[in-house]
Amino acid sequence: MPLAIALTLLWTHGTAPRVTSKRVYFFGSGQVEGNAQESALLGGKGANLAEMTKLGLPVPPGFTIATSVCREFEAGGERLPDKLSHEIELYLSRLEKFLSLEFGSTERPLLLSVRSGPPISMPGVMDTILNIGLNDISVEGLAEQFGDRRFAYDTYLRLIAMYGESLIRGNNGGDSWSLFDDALAARKREVNVERDSDLNDEHLAELVQIYKEIIITETGRPFPQDPREQLLQAVSAVFRSWNSPRAVAYRRLNNITASVGTAAIVQVMVFGNLGDTSGTGVAFSRDPNTGESSFFGEYLINVQGQDVVSGIRTPMPINGPGEDTLKGRIPAVYAQLHTICQTLERHYQDMQDIEFTVQRGELFLLQTRTGKRTAEAAVCIAVDMVHEGLIDKRLAVVRVTPEHIDQLLYPMLDLQAHYSVLARGLPASPGVATGVIVLDPAEAESLGKQGNKVILVRSETSPEDVASMYVTEGVLTSRGGMTSHAALVARGIGRPCVVGCADMVVDRKADTVRIGDQILHLGDTITIDGSTGDIILGEVATVQAPVTRKLDELMQWADEYRRLRVRANAETPADATTALKFGAEGIGLCRTEHMFFGPERIALMRQMILADTDIGRRGALGLLAEMQREDFRELFASMAGLPVTIRLLDPPLKEFLPNSHEEVLQVAEALGQKLEIVQGKVDRLWEHHPMLGLSGCRLGVKYPEIYETQVQAIFEAAVIVKRSGLQVHPEIMVPLVMTTAELAWARAIIDRVATKVFQRSQVAVGYLVGAAIEVPRAALVADTLARHADFFSFGVHELTQLTLGISSDAAASFLPTYVEDGLLSREPFQMIDEAGVGRLIRLAIKHGRSGRLDIKLGMCGEHGGDPFSVAFSHRAGLDYVSCSPFRVPVARLAAAHAALQEQD
Amino acid sequence: MPLAIALTLLWTHGTAPRVTSKRVYFFGSGQVEGNAQESALLGGKGANLAEMTKLGLPVPPGFTIATSVCREFEAGGERLPDKLSHEIELYLSRLEKFLSLEFGSTERPLLLSVRSGPPISMPGVMDTILNIGLNDISVEGLAEQFGDRRFAYDTYLRLIAMYGESLIRGNNGGDSWSLFDDALAARKREVNVERDSDLNDEHLAELVQIYKEIIITETGRPFPQDPREQLLQAVSAVFRSWNSPRAVAYRRLNNITASVGTAAIVQVMVFGNLGDTSGTGVAFSRDPNTGESSFFGEYLINVQGQDVVSGIRTPMPINGPGEDTLKGRIPAVYAQLHTICQTLERHYQDMQDIEFTVQRGELFLLQTRTGKRTAEAAVCIAVDMVHEGLIDKRLAVVRVTPEHIDQLLYPMLDLQAHYSVLARGLPASPGVATGVIVLDPAEAESLGKQGNKVILVRSETSPEDVASMYVTEGVLTSRGGMTSHAALVARGIGRPCVVGCADMVVDRKADTVRIGDQILHLGDTITIDGSTGDIILGEVATVQAPVTRKLDELMQWADEYRRLRVRANAETPADATTALKFGAEGIGLCRTEHMFFGPERIALMRQMILADTDIGRRGALGLLAEMQREDFRELFASMAGLPVTIRLLDPPLKEFLPNSHEEVLQVAEALGQKLEIVQGKVDRLWEHHPMLGLSGCRLGVKYPEIYETQVQAIFEAAVIVKRSGLQVHPEIMVPLVMTTAELAWARAIIDRVATKVFQRSQVAVGYLVGAAIEVPRAALVADTLARHADFFSFGVHELTQLTLGISSDAAASFLPTYVEDGLLSREPFQMIDEAGVGRLIRLAIKHGRSGRLDIKLGMCGEHGGDPFSVAFSHRAGLDYVSCSPFRVPVARLAAAHAALQEQD
Repeated sequence: MPLAIALTLLWTHGTAPRVTSKRVYFFGSGQVEGNAQESALLGGKGANLAEMTKLGLPVPPGFTIATSVCREFEAGGERLPDKLSHEIELYLSRLEKFLSLEFGSTERPLLLSVRSGPPISMPGVMDTILNIGLNDISVEGLAEQFGDRRFAYDTYLRLIAMYGESLIRGNNGGDSWSLFDDALAARKREVNVERDSDLNDEHLAELVQIYKEIIITETGRPFPQDPREQLLQAVSAVFRSWNSPRAVAYRRLNNITASVGTAAIVQVMVFGNLGDTSGTGVAFSRDPNTGESSFFGEYLINVQGQDVVSGIRTPMPINGPGEDTLKGRIPAVYAQLHTICQTLERHYQDMQDIEFTVQRGELFLLQTRTGKRTAEAAVCIAVDMVHEGLIDKRLAVVRVTPEHIDQLLYPMLDLQAHYSVLARGLPASPGVATGVIVLDPAEAESLGKQGNKVILVRSETSPEDVASMYVTEGVLTSRGGMTSHAALVARGIGRPCVVGCADMVVDRKADTVRIGDQILHLGDTITIDGSTGDIILGEVATVQAPVTRKLDELMQWADEYRRLRVRANAETPADATTALKFGAEGIGLCRTEHMFFGPERIALMRQMILADTDIGRRGALGLLAEMQREDFRELFASMAGLPVTIRLLDPPLKEFLPNSHEEVLQVAEALGQKLEIVQGKVDRLWEHHPMLGLSGCRLGVKYPEIYETQVQAIFEAAVIVKRSGLQVHPEIMVPLVMTTAELAWARAIIDRVATKVFQRSQVAVGYLVGAAIEVPRAALVADTLARHADFFSFGVHELTQLTLGISSDAAASFLPTYVEDGLLSREPFQMIDEAGVGRLIRLAIKHGRSGRLDIKLGMCGEHGGDPFSVAFSHRAGLDYVSCSPFRVPVARLAAAHAALQEQD
Repeated sequence: MPLAIALTLLWTHGTAPRVTSKRVYFFGSGQVEGNAQESALLGGKGANLAEMTKLGLPVPPGFTIATSVCREFEAGGERLPDKLSHEIELYLSRLEKFLSLEFGSTERPLLLSVRSGPPISMPGVMDTILNIGLNDISVEGLAEQFGDRRFAYDTYLRLIAMYGESLIRGNNGGDSWSLFDDALAARKREVNVERDSDLNDEHLAELVQIYKEIIITETGRPFPQDPREQLLQAVSAVFRSWNSPRAVAYRRLNNITASVGTAAIVQVMVFGNLGDTSGTGVAFSRDPNTGESSFFGEYLINVQGQDVVSGIRTPMPINGPGEDTLKGRIPAVYAQLHTICQTLERHYQDMQDIEFTVQRGELFLLQTRTGKRTAEAAVCIAVDMVHEGLIDKRLAVVRVTPEHIDQLLYPMLDLQAHYSVLARGLPASPGVATGVIVLDPAEAESLGKQGNKVILVRSETSPEDVASMYVTEGVLTSRGGMTSHAALVARGIGRPCVVGCADMVVDRKADTVRIGDQILHLGDTITIDGSTGDIILGEVATVQAPVTRKLDELMQWADEYRRLRVRANAETPADATTALKFGAEGIGLCRTEHMFFGPERIALMRQMILADTDIGRRGALGLLAEMQREDFRELFASMAGLPVTIRLLDPPLKEFLPNSHEEVLQVAEALGQKLEIVQGKVDRLWEHHPMLGLSGCRLGVKYPEIYETQVQAIFEAAVIVKRSGLQVHPEIMVPLVMTTAELAWARAIIDRVATKVFQRSQVAVGYLVGAAIEVPRAALVADTLARHADFFSFGVHELTQLTLGISSDAAASFLPTYVEDGLLSREPFQMIDEAGVGRLIRLAIKHGRSGRLDIKLGMCGEHGGDPFSVAFSHRAGLDYVSCSPFRVPVARLAAAHAALQEQD
């Protein structure tokens, strides 16, 4: 069952609430209504309070108003349902009897807290009001009850401030905490003291009046003296805060649906502000930073809960060296807390984050929840708990998210370091990089090769910048989105990258970069954080999460559960080695065009394209062929025994055309043709919509020599490698297939060249031929296409562009708004558009299998490293995904999650 | 049955041949093997010869070697099947007995012709060899037999020349007729005569030797003296000519599949070259030019068949005034021929084209076939034959093709006029236009408005040229394909247009147009023929086929059969009036962006787009709204009672952005903003792939004011028109829908604005809201989309671009090769790609109907006027197509054909 819960939380962010007419659920003294399985109804906090109560732990009694009431509140135009106050009344009297206190009593007033309890924790986002039940009269009763008038006024003051704050924020959306703070500070100046604790009870009583005046001034209504009105107002405030801008923003960022609503928890107050044997704190059953199995926590003496969270005072550790620890000060409470933590961890089978209060030496638990943790801790805890016999391997695998893996593989900014962020762009490729600003790619390449640390800063990058990107520390662009050229290449080669920094202006003429008001020059050092998008002046220290033995262990478990194979996109032996290190099971995409962008090679490509005759073309191609053969030989050798999918030349012709006058001149000279004639050809080959023009196998049809040469290089390399005693499994992918006849045409060339090479060398190599499904038409004719294909490789990026009619360039200009406004459920260039593109892929799979039952099916490109898209690939029945080497572990884990989810 | 044949010929261009092992089929003297229904087996000519023989008409006997033998010949590496010569031998002896002649005899030689007989007529394309059976000895026997030595040598000479020509062409593909012609001319010079007929028998006998030497020289082999070798060689030559470059080209142009093969017809010779009571000619049962019901034909005295066809001598009419007519010279033969023509027309129920030979006063029929006819004649004959009770209305409708209709609606070059073609481009919009060359659109507009006849000549056109296109005679561009901007607009407004003339260079600097070597200047007069793509210097006379009463009658019959409705694409009342005249049943596409391209309006659009605030935008939009309301009012009024589909603003933002510095300055001044700021905005809005960017309803989402304004203008106009007592049926189309949420969003705006307008005016108008299905994703989510749509309108042009991943700009650069090489079966921007785009549309229809059973389905854009795409629309179950006004009759007829084909 815990596995199911964990999965539910991971994948659906909240289950459907139980339908019931009951609104209020009691907990206290071992009796509970509802249980921890009902977090959808009771909220996470409410459910866990009930559970702890059942376990006999010291929880102040109270009752939970169910999440369904929040929905009633919304539906009723922000009014509580009529019957609610009656139900609350019944539960109040139950509490009163239980504690022998009276709500609203002037002598022994029962004080209550009202907290929010959403099904998914939203820490610090929603309203909390403590000390409800106090008024000008009962405050004196409280003073008498505890024999501490200062405490009573401190408590009353907190009630008024929290109430006021909540009301004012609800009224005008503003943050008014400072009004009360300012008044407090003014009072301290008047009486000439420094610390809050130096104010005596009279000072505080005067502040009560001042606070009450602030409320009248700001809201036009007095602070209610009637405790029942306070209570209902506080419940309303909690429900209202569910739709506060803060809460809406938080939910959007964390993919939590708004429809669930929050519970409101009404609980008897316990006081951490009752002197030196009182206090409040948080404890973790294990270290949330490292995952080490050591009891960990912080506390403050003589405060109420808010003070710990707000960070006004620096808390102290609960254990460790020194005397100020909880262990040192109140050892009995410490021991009790330690035991409870262990109990709870065993009960919940996960690391717990516990809020506690000590009231005059007596321990109370106010909350327990699954503790948030760093990526490192997540892996460590999951693996340790398996070894401790606490959880099984499946659950361990589920507990670590793909995002955790992502974080673990890159260095991170040291959070202890001091730095200020100049601007923020889109976090396009994770990791931190520091280097000097260089604007010119050639200069960047040259400096980089000399061992300098360089950040390439550009408006946007083009394929000719790739060579320089390999030798720079990171890339920063002012334009482009998460799938811009810079982003794609950087992720592919594992370089930190920040793109689309709209506040930045790159001025090539002046050789400056303007960020906001700041002008940076060539050679200035900057740091970029590709995980957050931050751009920072100067160098910042980083920390590297060690890729531990525990991670390897976890990934092995993940591999036991997944069905989907994971390959890597790689062009170089270096990429291939990285891919293997990260567990790739082959290469799913080798983009041969990346092999053509070196200066020498691109010059030959240009000659080839602009040559007048087949012979002219073959001359240039002959030279390219030798280089390619060597490329492929290295790649096959480093992936020995594993499949290597090679995509024949794919990009739009335009990417190989000379741009500048010099480049045209160079080609003209090489070809011995007139400049004007070559320029004329370039102009004619220029296309309005390169993406919708002469690219992919259309290039191959126009210049069959290109494909013939490439295929020959592939097979010659394969033969060499096979002769050396290694296994080689080439899979040749025909790009941008549109019609069945195209694939049949390409296949005929491939088979013919293969036969020729094998006959000549007397060595035969098994190979596959397949189609890249990037054009919607290919998916639509998958049945006939499959008769000529050994495999399909879905190019989801291209397929998304064409199926949605959006170029990835254009995407940045309006897709974010679309996602925000709900016109699209998610960014389709990051996570597959399941309803549209996904449907097309499923159609192609169905038809493809009808054409050839055993056709091999894969997905290549950036989506292959996105957990959501990996899960889709599993469900749709693909055989493998292929992604950047650095994302292979992410894909492996996501594939395991998908398989486990299916089993459940 | 004739209907079925006609349809078969129209739609499939040849039926599957019967499987049989019989190779040779006899006809003669009332006995036949096989019949006219077996044209797939016997070829058209062979089947009709058999049929005429059965009817007891005077057909020289012979036998047909079936088309299957042609396929055997091909499969066997251009060798006749072994058993064939044996079978031929059997039939030869049958002929010999029948005629008391002997093949190869030196005294009474049986002479034979061998003609090709493909299932579909390919006139003049394939080989024919006459007079087979003659050699150096039997030529004297023939002389004796007919008592005419000159005739015998003339006949022999023709055999050698035809045999030699066929062999030489088969050997080296060259055209060698001139070798024999040159020899003949040389001989005439030597003996000092002018005409062939002045050469006597001795001259001809000498020429026989010369011709034979030519054959040895050219082929290395002598002319065979063995008649049987002659016969088999001739049969081989006919089969070989099936795959001659000429024949392959002809079939490609006429969509005839190569697999059918040709029959070879071996027939006893009759001689038209036996003196003044002999001759040969062609006759038509009705006038093939006008369709008039008058006997029509031409003949030559004392010639063999070739001379009539080759046009060396000018033939004489068979009837009419003057004495040289057949009627005047050999009245009995004329009368017999006339009767036979009427018999054959009645038998075949169609106008017949008959070849005849008169041998010494005796009439022989060599061929009958359905006569080719002009568009005018096609309509006239079809309608007349119905009135004559010869055929029914269904058959009449089928007999007229959509291409006929197309021709009838445009003026054509007078074929009698003398002119020479400078160059040829793509025939983008039919009709002929003459005018002076103008390169600048503004100048063209101004000159055109002053009443000058102008041809706008451009590299390519852009939306801002549209205003000038309205006032020019025609448009000529050097770039772009059949679906380029120029082509689309020209077809839409019915202007002749030739595009993609690669031989033409437009030099704006020099104000010249270079076509080949010729430099043309501004003001030079040219003529363009948008039906052929011809570009001609100077003015050429044109003829206008009258759109007759008969056409109206035929179209009414067509309307009785069709199920598919036909609407027109129209923006102006003038367009609407044309559309109604041509029988449109509403407007299926009013592209509102066309209403924004006037100079005043585009300035306002630019202000709107570049304004900083909603208010700024609404200011410019307010002015535009008034103009739009008036536009819509006029459109609704002229289409009263019929549906009018209005597409909300659709084109890429880029089309509205200012281009030049002056335009940016103008906008900046109007907005009171700094130039740099406006320029910066323009730069930011610029897109790499405008077609895949911010256009269609994405613009609406970004600037909701645009749609609100347009919708308000639509409903206000509708209210005005309804108040005036007219019926109005607006259907609002949301362009480029990608997600269901987009359509729901747009529908909410439309419904809200409608309610507001109706409440204010106290008049309500029924309206529909639908989605343009242009993005593949929309088709894929048609089920959910349909829940928010009253109709779908398939924008096949856009859908083709995205489904195939080809921009229509790029199409010209490689699609023609694709179609030629069979990588695509047809040009998808002209005829719908049924396998790909068609499948997507069928999917959307199925899913759409599952979402909303009664959803209305239409197709809009250029494909709506293409007969193939109309037929698809019918079969797929669409409710209507919408096309240019000028193509409405074409679509109506094509829809009727589709319906009739379905019934069969």
